[in-house]
Amino acid sequence: MPQHSVTMADVAKAAGVSRTAVSFVLNQRTDVNIPDATRERINVVARELGYRPNAAARTLASKKSAWFGLVTEIATSPFASGVIKGAQQAAWQDGRFLLIAPSDDEPGMESLAVEKLLEQQIGGLVIAASWHREITVPENAMSVPCVLVNCFDADQRFPSIVPDEVGGGYTATDILLKSGHTNIGHITLTPGIPAQTGREIGMKKALAEAGITQPASNIVAGDGTADSGFQGTRELLELPDPPTAIFCGNDRIAMGAYDAIKESGLRVGTDISIVGFDDQEILAPHLRPRLTTIALPFEEMGTAGVSLLNQMAEGAPIDNRQITIGCPPRIRSSVAVPGRR
Amino acid sequence: MPQHSVTMADVAKAAGVSRTAVSFVLNQRTDVNIPDATRERINVVARELGYRPNAAARTLASKKSAWFGLVTEIATSPFASGVIKGAQQAAWQDGRFLLIAPSDDEPGMESLAVEKLLEQQIGGLVIAASWHREITVPENAMSVPCVLVNCFDADQRFPSIVPDEVGGGYTATDILLKSGHTNIGHITLTPGIPAQTGREIGMKKALAEAGITQPASNIVAGDGTADSGFQGTRELLELPDPPTAIFCGNDRIAMGAYDAIKESGLRVGTDISIVGFDDQEILAPHLRPRLTTIALPFEEMGTAGVSLLNQMAEGAPIDNRQITIGCPPRIRSSVAVPGRR
Repeated sequence: MPQHSVTMADVAKAAGVSRTAVSFVLNQRTDVNIPDATRERINVVARELGYRPNAAARTLASKKSAWFGLVTEIATSPFASGVIKGAQQAAWQDGRFLLIAPSDDEPGMESLAVEKLLEQQIGGLVIAASWHREITVPENAMSVPCVLVNCFDADQRFPSIVPDEVGGGYTATDILLKSGHTNIGHITLTPGIPAQTGREIGMKKALAEAGITQPASNIVAGDGTADSGFQGTRELLELPDPPTAIFCGNDRIAMGAYDAIKESGLRVGTDISIVGFDDQEILAPHLRPRLTTIALPFEEMGTAGVSLLNQMAEGAPIDNRQITIGCPPRIRSSVAVPGRR
Repeated sequence: MPQHSVTMADVAKAAGVSRTAVSFVLNQRTDVNIPDATRERINVVARELGYRPNAAARTLASKKSAWFGLVTEIATSPFASGVIKGAQQAAWQDGRFLLIAPSDDEPGMESLAVEKLLEQQIGGLVIAASWHREITVPENAMSVPCVLVNCFDADQRFPSIVPDEVGGGYTATDILLKSGHTNIGHITLTPGIPAQTGREIGMKKALAEAGITQPASNIVAGDGTADSGFQGTRELLELPDPPTAIFCGNDRIAMGAYDAIKESGLRVGTDISIVGFDDQEILAPHLRPRLTTIALPFEEMGTAGVSLLNQMAEGAPIDNRQITIGCPPRIRSSVAVPGRR
C-alpha cells in the first residue's frame, strides 16, 4: 500500500523551486512575492505527486490548534450521537477537527480523557453529558477554553448549554390544553433532577395561564422507566376523577403508560391522550398510536457548544451563563379531543 | 486562562540543562548517557512547570502515526456509539487516538470524510456502517490500511468485520426449540439484505437439525418496522394452524408483534413466544414482557476492527477475508413453553 511520503521537499525538487517557495505557495501566503507562473507550477506538481498538507506540521507552524476535544459518555446513551453530530459539523465549518474521547468506562475516566486530549494540544474542549445534570468538571479542563453541553457545574465557572426543560414542559401541556383537556395527569422523572423539576415547572406554568387548578393526586412520581409509567398510569386511572390526558416525563414512561391503558381496555389517544418527552427515534414514532412528544435538541446543543468554543478560542469575552436551547414538539397521533369515552 | 506554553526549552532553562538533554529524557531515550540525577531533575522540573508532551511534534518526530480514523454514520443510528466505544478502547490500548468523522450528511460525504482524515496523517482507517451491508469504498481509502466494520466491499479488497447473522438466527430459533416449540413463525427484515438472508439461513439450519419442516406460510416478509411486525403477526395468527412462537427479524418487528398479539386478546410469552434480534437497549428490556433477543456485537466489532488495524499498521500480512463476530442471546421473559393457550 502507498504511504504518505510526499513532502514539500519532494514537490520542490520536482518543480525545480526552493522548499521555501513551496511552503509559501502551499500555505497560501500572499504576502510573499512569487510569480504567478511559479505558484501555478508548484500547485500542479503538488497535485500530481499527491501531496497532502500535513495538519500536524501546520498546527505546529501556525500555533492555532486544528482541533477541539469532546469528552462524552458514548456508550450509555444513544443520545450522545446527536451531540457528536452537531459538534462535528460546527467544528468542520471552522476548519477544525473534533477529537472524541469516551468518559463512561470507570470513575476518573473523565479526567483521563481530558488529559489525553490536552496532550493532543487541543484548542478547546466540550464536555457533554448523556442526561442533563450537574457535573464536577475535572481540574485539568481549566487549561483550555471549555464549554459544558447538557450539563453544568455548581460554580458556573464554565459556560453551559442545556435544554429548555421549562419551555418543553410548557409546550407538552399546551398541546393537551389546546386539544381541550382540562384534567391532566403527570408522571414525573426521578424527583429532583433538572429535567424533572424543569418539566414540572413548565407544566404548572401552562396550567396556571389556562386558569386550571390541578389536584395534587394528578402528579405521580416516576423514575424514567417504562415500569414507572405503567404503575403511574394505573394509579391515575384509579382516581375518582381520572385524567383524560397524561403528560409523561419521557418516552419510556409513555411506553409503559400505553401498556397500562391498553390492559385497562382503553384506547391511547381516543380514550386517554398521551404526550411524551425526548423524542427517542427508535421508540416514539414506532409506538401504536405514534407518540406525540417533545424533542430534546441534542444536535443543536452540540452545534451551539462548538460555536461558543470557536468564539472563545478566538479570544471573545465569555459570559459564563447558562444558554438554553428550545425543545420543539413532534406532533403524531397520541393526542385527541377528550370526552369520547 | 492559562495556555499550553511550556516547551522543552522552558524545562531546559529551568533545570539548567540543554534542550537536547530534556528531549532525550522526556522521550524516555535510554540509549543516551545522561546521569540519573539529571534525568530526575528534568522530570521533576517538567512536572512542576506543567509540561505536556506535544503529540503533534512527537508524531512528526517518530513518523509513526498517533491516530487512526473512523468514518461512520453517526446520526442515523444509535448503534454507531457501540462501534465507536469498542474502536476507541482498542485504539487507546495501543496509545493511539481515534479521529471520528461523520459520513451521513449527504452523498459524497464519505469520500470527503476520508480526505479530511488523510490530511491528519492517520495511520489507518475504519469505515463503519450503521447496518450490515455492501458499501462502495471511496478510492482515497486505499492510501492507508483500511478495515470495514459492519459492512463489506464487493471485491473483498479490504478486510471486513461483520456480525454472524447465520449464527444469530440459529441461536434465536434454538431458544424456541429448546422451550418445546415446533410450529415457529418468522417475520423477516427487508428481503435480500445480509441480515435478512443470514438470519433466515440460521433459522432453517436449526429447524433442519431438529427435523422440523416449516410450512412456507410460516415465513412472512417484513421490512424492519414495528408496522411490518404488527401486520406480519396478524397474518401468522390467521393461519389455520398458527405458530406458537415467532422469531422476529429485529426488535422493532417484535414490538409490533407484541401489539398485534395483545390486540388479539392473547398474551406474549404465555400464549405466543417471541424472540427478537439486535438487543436495542432502549427497547428490548422495556417491552412488557421483557424481550428475549439476540444482541448485535457492535462494541466487539469496533474493537476487532481497530485490533486488526493495529496489526496492519505494524506491517502484518493481511488476509482480506471476512471475520464474523458472534451474536449472543439475551434471555428475558418473552419465551415460555407452548401449549398453555
